[in-house]
Amino acid sequence: MISTKLTELLGIDHPVVSAPMGSVSGGRLAAAVTQAGGLGLVGVSYGDPTFIDEHVAHAAERGGVWGVGCVMFTFDERPGLWDKVLGYAPPVIALSFGDAAQVRRYVESAARSGAQVVVQVHDTEQAATALQAGASVLVVQGSEAGGHHKTQSTLPLVPAVLDITQGTVPVVAAGGFADGRGLAAALALGADGVMMGTRFAATEESLATTGFKTTLVSASTTDTVNTRAFDVVRGIPWDTVYQARSVGNDFTRTWTGRDAELAARRADVEPEWVAAVARDDTSQRAMFAGEVLDLVQDIQPAAAVVRGTVAEAEAVLARLATLTAS
Amino acid sequence: MISTKLTELLGIDHPVVSAPMGSVSGGRLAAAVTQAGGLGLVGVSYGDPTFIDEHVAHAAERGGVWGVGCVMFTFDERPGLWDKVLGYAPPVIALSFGDAAQVRRYVESAARSGAQVVVQVHDTEQAATALQAGASVLVVQGSEAGGHHKTQSTLPLVPAVLDITQGTVPVVAAGGFADGRGLAAALALGADGVMMGTRFAATEESLATTGFKTTLVSASTTDTVNTRAFDVVRGIPWDTVYQARSVGNDFTRTWTGRDAELAARRADVEPEWVAAVARDDTSQRAMFAGEVLDLVQDIQPAAAVVRGTVAEAEAVLARLATLTAS
Ligand SMILES: Cc1cc2nc3c(=O)[nH]c(=O)nc-3n(C[C@H](O)[C@H](O)[C@H](O)COP(=O)(O)O)c2cc1C
Ligand SMILES: Cc1cc2nc3c(=O)[nH]c(=O)nc-3n(C[C@H](O)[C@H](O)[C@H](O)COP(=O)(O)O)c2cc1C
Repeated sequence: MISTKLTELLGIDHPVVSAPMGSVSGGRLAAAVTQAGGLGLVGVSYGDPTFIDEHVAHAAERGGVWGVGCVMFTFDERPGLWDKVLGYAPPVIALSFGDAAQVRRYVESAARSGAQVVVQVHDTEQAATALQAGASVLVVQGSEAGGHHKTQSTLPLVPAVLDITQGTVPVVAAGGFADGRGLAAALALGADGVMMGTRFAATEESLATTGFKTTLVSASTTDTVNTRAFDVVRGIPWDTVYQARSVGNDFTRTWTGRDAELAARRADVEPEWVAAVARDDTSQRAMFAGEVLDLVQDIQPAAAVVRGTVAEAEAVLARLATLTAS
Repeated sequence: MISTKLTELLGIDHPVVSAPMGSVSGGRLAAAVTQAGGLGLVGVSYGDPTFIDEHVAHAAERGGVWGVGCVMFTFDERPGLWDKVLGYAPPVIALSFGDAAQVRRYVESAARSGAQVVVQVHDTEQAATALQAGASVLVVQGSEAGGHHKTQSTLPLVPAVLDITQGTVPVVAAGGFADGRGLAAALALGADGVMMGTRFAATEESLATTGFKTTLVSASTTDTVNTRAFDVVRGIPWDTVYQARSVGNDFTRTWTGRDAELAARRADVEPEWVAAVARDDTSQRAMFAGEVLDLVQDIQPAAAVVRGTVAEAEAVLARLATLTAS
C-alpha cells in the first residue's frame, strides 16, 4: 500500500486514477478501477445523455469511490446535461478544458453537490486559477498525454505546479505514465498519484474498439502525432491552444495542419469519415494515445493494471531505499 | 551519498552530470562540477581549436573525472580536431548527434583512447545503435531539453530505453531536470543519474553572457520555443529531425519556420546577427534553455547545484520510504 494525500482525501487504497476518456472510459472500466482500489472515472466528456444513463448509472450502481469526467466548454451549450450528471451524485467530479470563468462556475457547482472536485490543468496559470476556484485536487497533465493537451511536458511541469500549490491540495500527475516506474517517479517529483489514460484504454473493460485496442498494442510512440483534424471533422469548437495526440493514420496524414480547408469541406468529408469510424476503420478513426505507447504491450484487465502498477512502484521504492548510504 | 551504476563505473561521488553546452560549459564549469563530485563535461560541441586549448586544457589540469562533449556530425569535416581533443586524454568522452556510422566510428575511436564513452540518444532506435556500437553509458535526452533535441519526452522515453538496455550499461536521463525532485524521479524511472544543461547554464562558472544569464533567471518555461533559425543563420548543417529549444526573442519570432528564406538571405542577415550577438543583444542571440526554466530562479555556484540537487534527492528518497506501509 502506498498512502498519499490523495488516497487519504478520497479514502481510496491506491494513488492510481483512470482517466475520463470519451467513448473509452465507460462504467465497467471505471467500476473495475474503483473496485481494485483506485479511482475510476467515467468519461462523460462532451456529454451524450444515452451514454450517461448507461455508463454513469453503471458506475453509480457499483458504488465505492468513483467519479465522472466532464469537458467544461461543451457543457455550456447543453443546459440540463450538467444537472443530469449531478443527478447520479458522483463522489468525485473531474473537470477539464474550460476557461477561468468556466472553471470557477463548474467547481463551485460540483462542490455544492458534495463531490470532491478534481480539475485538470496544463500550465501554472491554469493551476493558480483552479486552486483559487477551490479545486480539491489538481491533475497536472503534460504534452506526453494521449488525447488533448497543451505544450508543456509533465516532468518539469509537475514540480513547477507543486511550487504553487505548496501542499495545499493533492496533485495528480498525468501524461506519460504507464507503469510502476512512472508512479514512483511521480511520487518522487512530489505528486500524490498518477492518472493514466492510454494504459487504461488498453484494458479488457475499456470501450475502445477492437481496431483501436489492436493498434494500442502494436503501435509505437513514434507513430503518435498531434493533430486537430478529429476536432475539426467533428465540428467541436476546441480552443486551438490544445492539440490531440493520436496514433497517426491516413486521416491525420491527409488533414493535419489543414484545419481551415477541412472545416470548409466538412459537409463532404464528415459523412464518409463517420461511416469509416462506424466500421472501425483504423486508417480513418481517431485513436487517441500518448507517448507511453512503447510501454503498452498488452491488453490487461483494469484491476491487473492497478495492482501491477502499485506492486511495481512499491518494488521501486524499496530499491530506491538501498541507493543511499551516508 | 547516492550510489548507482553510473557513480560506480566512473568512480564519481554523485550521479549528476553537467551537460556539454557549446559556448556555455567551459573548463571552469566542468572542473567545478567534477570537484563537487559530479561529472563535469566541457562543451567542445562544434569544435573551435582555441576554445579547446583554453577550456579542455583547464579541465585537464584540474584533473579528476572530467570529460568533453563533442557533436559528431561537425567533426567529420575538420580533420585534426578529433585528435586534438584526444590529445588531452579526457577520462570521459560524450558524443552527441551523429548518424549510425558516425556513432560506430567515434565510439570505437574514443574507446581506443581509453576513455569511458557516453552517447546521447533521443529515441529507442538510437539507443539500440549506441548500445551495439559499444557505448559505456547512454544519455537519454527528451524534448523538454534546452538546445537540440528530437520529439519524444524524457518521462516515457527513459523507461522505454531501459527496456532495451536491460541494465547492461548505466543510463543517464536528460531533459527536464533541475533539482533533487528530478534526480529522484529519474532514479525512480530506473535511470542511474541525470544530466542537467539549463540548470548549469545558470551558474556562476558558466560562460553564458550576462544577458543570457539574466534571461535564464527571469524567463518562464512558456517563453521557450523550438526553432531552427539559429542553425540556419549560422549555416550549421543540422539534420532537420532536430530542433533547438531557446528562449524566444525577436530573432526567433522573425525567422522560426522560414528556414529556406533565411538560408537564401543569409549573406544579408548573418553579419548583423553576429554583431548583435557580439554585443550580447538578447533580442537576437540564441539562448538555449529547456522547459525547466520555471524551476531555475537564481544563479548559483556549480558546486551548490550539485550538492543541493543531491541533498534534495536524498530527502525525497527518505520521504518516499515513509509512503509504503503493508
Ligand atoms: C483515448 C483517450 C481519450 C481521452 N479523452 C479525454 C476526454 O474525453 N476528456 C479529458 O479530459 N481527457 C481525455 N483524455 C486525456 C486523459 O484525461 C489524460 O489526461 C491522458 O490520457 C493522460 O496521459 P496518458 O495517455 O499518457 O496516460 C483522453 C485520453 C485518451 C488516451
Ligand atoms: C545552452 C545550452 C547549450 C547546449 N549545447 C549543446 C551542445 O553543444 N551539444 C550537446 O550535445 N548538447 C547541447 N545541449 C543539450 C544538453 O546536452 C542537454 O541534453 C540538455 O541541456 C538537457 O536538458 P535540460 O536543459 O533540461 O537540462 C545544450 C543545452 C543548453 C541548455
